[in-house]
Amino acid sequence: MKNVHIGLGDRSYNVGIGVDLLHAAASWPDLPVGTAALIVTNTTVAPLYGAALSERLCRHYPRVEVLALPDGEAHKDWPTLNLIFDHLLANGFDRKTVLFALGGGVVGDMTGFAAATYMRGVPFVQIPTTLLAQVDSSVGGKTAINHPQGKNMIGAFYQPELVLCDLSSLATLPQREVAAGLAEVIKYGPIYDEAFLVWLEANIERLVAREPEALALAVARCCEIKAAVVGADEREAGLRAILNFGHTFGHAIEAGLGFGVWLHGEAVAAGMVMAAELSERLGLMPTGFRLRLEKLNQRAGLPVRGPKLGGTEYLQHMRVDKKTEAGAIRFVLIHGLGHAVVKPAPDDLVVEVVEQLSA
Amino acid sequence: MKNVHIGLGDRSYNVGIGVDLLHAAASWPDLPVGTAALIVTNTTVAPLYGAALSERLCRHYPRVEVLALPDGEAHKDWPTLNLIFDHLLANGFDRKTVLFALGGGVVGDMTGFAAATYMRGVPFVQIPTTLLAQVDSSVGGKTAINHPQGKNMIGAFYQPELVLCDLSSLATLPQREVAAGLAEVIKYGPIYDEAFLVWLEANIERLVAREPEALALAVARCCEIKAAVVGADEREAGLRAILNFGHTFGHAIEAGLGFGVWLHGEAVAAGMVMAAELSERLGLMPTGFRLRLEKLNQRAGLPVRGPKLGGTEYLQHMRVDKKTEAGAIRFVLIHGLGHAVVKPAPDDLVVEVVEQLSA
Repeated sequence: MKNVHIGLGDRSYNVGIGVDLLHAAASWPDLPVGTAALIVTNTTVAPLYGAALSERLCRHYPRVEVLALPDGEAHKDWPTLNLIFDHLLANGFDRKTVLFALGGGVVGDMTGFAAATYMRGVPFVQIPTTLLAQVDSSVGGKTAINHPQGKNMIGAFYQPELVLCDLSSLATLPQREVAAGLAEVIKYGPIYDEAFLVWLEANIERLVAREPEALALAVARCCEIKAAVVGADEREAGLRAILNFGHTFGHAIEAGLGFGVWLHGEAVAAGMVMAAELSERLGLMPTGFRLRLEKLNQRAGLPVRGPKLGGTEYLQHMRVDKKTEAGAIRFVLIHGLGHAVVKPAPDDLVVEVVEQLSA
Repeated sequence: MKNVHIGLGDRSYNVGIGVDLLHAAASWPDLPVGTAALIVTNTTVAPLYGAALSERLCRHYPRVEVLALPDGEAHKDWPTLNLIFDHLLANGFDRKTVLFALGGGVVGDMTGFAAATYMRGVPFVQIPTTLLAQVDSSVGGKTAINHPQGKNMIGAFYQPELVLCDLSSLATLPQREVAAGLAEVIKYGPIYDEAFLVWLEANIERLVAREPEALALAVARCCEIKAAVVGADEREAGLRAILNFGHTFGHAIEAGLGFGVWLHGEAVAAGMVMAAELSERLGLMPTGFRLRLEKLNQRAGLPVRGPKLGGTEYLQHMRVDKKTEAGAIRFVLIHGLGHAVVKPAPDDLVVEVVEQLSA
């Protein structure tokens, strides 16, 4: 198993990356001490990996239960979160309980927020089973639920005790979700690591085909970059915002269509194309960068155009983005490959870019 | 203004204690920087102090609004919390917003939890207007809402940037609420400070009559003790639990009758009597301690007997207390005046004590 260390002082932890961790691996890293474990997962993932994880955890905890939530971004809300609290309270789980998030980003975000707030905080472990969660959402301690008026508006910074990425769990992922995960993989190139972008351009088909060696390298590199960024700015006072490249436009797409219509990664992919164009228009990147990103997106099976909602509706959704300050939307833009900046842009220019790149 | 410092590293802050802070004081301590302020209060407190605070804050923030929630413990729930999120999002408050909790413990707990989770955390200031909130709930960073299956079950440890205790705001408090606050004042004696208990026995009528000098001394001493305890154990890994003297029985009373029927402080008062008796029965305190506490409670206008719910129902409610570990209820008991311990007790003994001391 490869290990990536997330250095956050007394909140530090490791990300373990390997094959067959859930079903076959003989040894696991140390698990948090606790009186009980609750595996929170969804109805899609539970039949695939619920029993294997449960069996494994029974060696460590006197009591292990599985709770399967409804699947999908549309359920990342208070009523679904409350199902976790209801289960914990109705079954007498105390504050020495360890929560395990087994699933994708939605399960991880909700389980993490439940762990952050159940009895004012219990330990939790992330076991991400989607590519998107392995390379992005399971690392760094962002937890949240959506509010009808905005995505991820209610949440907390709360770090897991451990993250375990079983690359074998990606085998059961629909191709559309692999592609969505690749959007977050691609993101790390422009914002932080030109060499990784070049590597992706040489190897993207290997990732699409889920070759374990390529996946292991990509997941580890993404976690390393995320660790460096989060280690420098855990609570998003500055640098950490660069991880949201493509996300401001992406959030508008998700909110405009209704959460869950496009996958998060798909919206981010189209959003990165818009943010790339905006970077070019503002003179931060030479012409050709947006097209280069589009080509990589297309090879990954990702969209390169946003839905036609109209520039004004995009703007309106972007104004409730968490990066907004005193009404000004702040965009993550590329300023030289491998280097991102966060700044506002004129509304009319943003509208132009959106209308050019939606179809 | 008297200042008590709460030392918690980079989360340290001051508690300012004085008279006429809201209406007349010329100078205030530094307020957190922000793009806007939202004063969260309730429909009882808003007409008394909402305008004065709003006017004061307009000197510091470009935008100040007031949100009045329904009053009472029965509203310390998710739907009411969500009114805060709805207001913030519908009116475009960004994550540089500062929340001000103006009111008692319910307003403070809910506003603090909203601050902990709105956009994953915004700064907040506590302006407690009840005695209970000034001596206990506004200091130390415990925030929470109730769940139908248990009190304060969903929450976070999240420290305010500043606490301002205006002793003059206690003038408008109903006598029943003054008494309820005195329960938390009395608590600090047995658990931490025998001299303070002796002082209370000499001065309790001055506090009941709201003499400013006596109030100033009591509020400051309570905040000092709380600061010492919380500074040693912010997240209640050990020592901090002693602040819950009387609260385990008290929570059973509140949950058994339905939240809001008895005031929190009233339930704690009857709970302290039970915990004192349990301390005697376990040989931790000499006979006479329970009676001494009863006399002080009575002079403060507080109950000394719990409601007759039956010992089994008490036990059942206490089992969902957050201090429970692997099914064992853990009680805060006095072991020599000024010294508390946390330990389990036999069920049958607890039932006996409850039935003896409920009427």
